[in-house]
Amino acid sequence: MRIIVLGGDGYLGWPTALHLSECGHEVAIADNFVRRQYDHELGVQSLVPIEPLTVRVRAWHELTGKQLATYVGDLCDADFTYRIIREFRPDAVVHFAEQRAAPYSMIDRKHAVYTQTNNVVGTLNLLYAIAETDPSIHLIKLGTMGEYGTPNIDIEEGWLEVTHKGRTDRVLYPKRPSSFYHLSKVHDSHNIEFACRIWGLAATDLNQGIVYGQQTDETVRDDRLATRFDYDAVFGTVLNRFIVLAALGQPLTVYGEGGQTRGLIDIRDTVECIRLAAEHPAKPGEYRVFNQMTESMSVRDLAKLVADLHPNAVEVEYLDNPRVEAEAHYYKVTHSGLVELGLTPHLLSETLLTSLYAVADRYKHRADPAALRPTVRWRSPLATARAGSAG
Amino acid sequence: MRIIVLGGDGYLGWPTALHLSECGHEVAIADNFVRRQYDHELGVQSLVPIEPLTVRVRAWHELTGKQLATYVGDLCDADFTYRIIREFRPDAVVHFAEQRAAPYSMIDRKHAVYTQTNNVVGTLNLLYAIAETDPSIHLIKLGTMGEYGTPNIDIEEGWLEVTHKGRTDRVLYPKRPSSFYHLSKVHDSHNIEFACRIWGLAATDLNQGIVYGQQTDETVRDDRLATRFDYDAVFGTVLNRFIVLAALGQPLTVYGEGGQTRGLIDIRDTVECIRLAAEHPAKPGEYRVFNQMTESMSVRDLAKLVADLHPNAVEVEYLDNPRVEAEAHYYKVTHSGLVELGLTPHLLSETLLTSLYAVADRYKHRADPAALRPTVRWRSPLATARAGSAG
Repeated sequence: MRIIVLGGDGYLGWPTALHLSECGHEVAIADNFVRRQYDHELGVQSLVPIEPLTVRVRAWHELTGKQLATYVGDLCDADFTYRIIREFRPDAVVHFAEQRAAPYSMIDRKHAVYTQTNNVVGTLNLLYAIAETDPSIHLIKLGTMGEYGTPNIDIEEGWLEVTHKGRTDRVLYPKRPSSFYHLSKVHDSHNIEFACRIWGLAATDLNQGIVYGQQTDETVRDDRLATRFDYDAVFGTVLNRFIVLAALGQPLTVYGEGGQTRGLIDIRDTVECIRLAAEHPAKPGEYRVFNQMTESMSVRDLAKLVADLHPNAVEVEYLDNPRVEAEAHYYKVTHSGLVELGLTPHLLSETLLTSLYAVADRYKHRADPAALRPTVRWRSPLATARAGSAG
Repeated sequence: MRIIVLGGDGYLGWPTALHLSECGHEVAIADNFVRRQYDHELGVQSLVPIEPLTVRVRAWHELTGKQLATYVGDLCDADFTYRIIREFRPDAVVHFAEQRAAPYSMIDRKHAVYTQTNNVVGTLNLLYAIAETDPSIHLIKLGTMGEYGTPNIDIEEGWLEVTHKGRTDRVLYPKRPSSFYHLSKVHDSHNIEFACRIWGLAATDLNQGIVYGQQTDETVRDDRLATRFDYDAVFGTVLNRFIVLAALGQPLTVYGEGGQTRGLIDIRDTVECIRLAAEHPAKPGEYRVFNQMTESMSVRDLAKLVADLHPNAVEVEYLDNPRVEAEAHYYKVTHSGLVELGLTPHLLSETLLTSLYAVADRYKHRADPAALRPTVRWRSPLATARAGSAG
C-alpha cells in the first residue's frame, strides 16, 4: 500500500514510518518540524539524541535499500495538504501531525488557542483534501484515551448503545476530557465522524493510551534511527519520565494521590496497531474507533513498579496535583478491536523496564533535572502564564 | 445588572440588547459587523432595512433616554476581548458573536475552517478573559438545538443519565450534528464545560431552536430600531424564508420529504429567555444547559401552515435535499428549564403569521428571488465550491 505518515518526524510518527516501510509498504513522511521547535521554546531536548529527518531517511536507505519520500510543510496550509494528497496518492493517511501534550495546551491562552487551531484546522484541511481528491483514501487518525475522561461507566470503543426512557440508539461515546489538548481531539473526532457521514469517507480513529518505551525492532538497528525520548514535565509521558527520574536518583513524582488510572501501550504495539489498521481499512462511510491500549494501571502503581524493579534505591514523592482530575475513579476500558485484527500485546514487563533503564542510563548526562518538575497549573491560567514565560 | 451583548448588532443580539436595556439593565454591545459583511459577500441583504449601529443606539437613546455602550472589535483578537471584559466589568456576558449559518459553513473548505476557527477561538479567548479577570462573570452562550442532531432517544437539556453494564453516570448529552457550523457549537460546549470544571466559571449554554419572527416589543417602536430579516437560502431560517416566498407568490421550497422536525422559538421568547438566564445565573462551577425552544414541527407541516393561513394561494414544492440529514426521524425534546425560570412561551399562531406576512409584504420589493434557492450542497464540497464562488 501507499501510506503517508503525517507528523512522521515525531516520537511515534518516525517509528511508524519505519515499521510500515519494513513491512513492505511505500511510505512517505510529511512534517513541519514544529515538535523540534517546541523543544527550543521550552528549553529542553530529547534524552536520546535524534538526527535530522534527512539523515534518518538516508540511514534507513543505507541499511535497507528502502526509500522514504519526504514532504516539508504544515497541514494548516491547505495548499500543502492538498498537494501531498494529490502528489503521493496514498491508499492510507496516518495522521500524527498534531500538538500532543496536555500541559503544553494548558500553559496559557495562546497555547490553548494554538493547540486547538493547529489540530482542528489541520484535520479539517485533510478531510477536505481527501474528500476532493479521492474519498476512498483511508484516514487513520490518532486520538487519545484522554478524550473519554474518567466516566463512571465502562469505556467502549467510540460508540455507545444507550437506552433512555424505553428507546435505544447507538451514539458517539460521550466525552469529558481534561485539557484543551484532549478537547482538540474530541473536536477532531466529531468533525471526522461527520465527514464519514456526509462524504462517505473511511476513517479509523485510534484512541491511544499513554505510550511508553523508545525502541522498536526498526529504530534499534542504528543510533541514527533513534526516535525521541521525552522526559520533561510538558512532553514526557509518565512512565518515560519516571525512568529518567530513577536514572538521576531523584524521587518519582506522582501528582496528587496517584489513583489516576490510565490506559498504557508499548511503542512496539503502537506501530503494529497502525499497520493493522492500515491493512484492514474502515469501510466507505465508516467512522471506526479503536481504543489503542493494552493494559491499565494507576500512576501510583506505575511509580511503585519502576521503583521496585530499578537496581538503585528509588523513592516515590507525592506532589500537589497541578492538574484538575479525579485522583480515585472507576476505569474499565474495552480494547478488543485491535486484538481482533491480530494485535499480540507486549504487556509491561521487567525485560522492557530493564532495557529502558539502560537507555536512560546511557543518556542521563543529557537530562536537565529542572525540566522534570511540573510548572503548568490547570487551575490558574494567570499564574501559569507567568511561569511559562519565565521558563 | 451590567450585561454585555457580544454580537449585539445581529438579528438576535440587537433585540436582546434592547430588551435587557428596557428591563433596567446596564447594557453594552460588542460587534465587528462581520454579519453585515457576509451580506456583501453573498450579494444579499436583510429584507427589512436596518440602520448602522450608531443610528440604532442614538434612536434608542432618543426614545428612552437609555444609553448603550458600544465596542467595535473581534473576539478572535484577544486584546479586544480582554479589554471589553476589563473595561465594562459585566455581571453577565451574552455571547451571540459567532458565524451562525449551517449553509455558510458548508460552502467550501475555507468557510468551514473560518466558521470553526472564528467560533471556537472567539469563545476560547472569552473563557480566558473571564477566568483571568473575574471568574464570577456569568457566561450566557448561544448554542443550537442542531448540536444534538436527531437521535432516536429523547433529547435532554445538555446532560444525560446513562446506565451501562449495570453502572450509572451523568454524562454530557452525546451530540451528532449535521454541519461544520453546528459542530463548532459542539466544540464550544465541550470547551465551556471544561472551563467551568477547572476554573469554576458559571455558564449557561442555550441550545436554541430555529428562531422565527422579526419584531419585539422594543424593536417595533421605531423603524430605526428594526432588526434583520434574513430570507436568503444561506442565512434565512426556514419560517422567515417561507413567509418571503409566499409574499413573492413563489412556492415554498421544502428540502427532501420535509419530515425533518425541528425545535422552534419566537424571537420575542428568545430575548426573554436571555433575560431570565441573566437574572437567574448559573452557580460557580456550573455548566447549565437549557433547550431554548418552545415547540417542534416538521418542515413539511410548517410549509403547510404558512400556505394555509396566507391570504394568497401558495404552493409547496419539494426539492432534492441539498443537505445530508434524516428526513423522517424520532424527535422529542425536554425544554422545561426556561419555563421553570418563568418563560411563558408565544406559540406559533395565526396572529404572529399575519403580522409577519405584513412585514414581508411591506418590503417584498427588496427581495431577490434568486437568493431563495439553495446553492450550497452538503454531499460534494467540490461542486459547492464552484457554485459558491459563482454566486
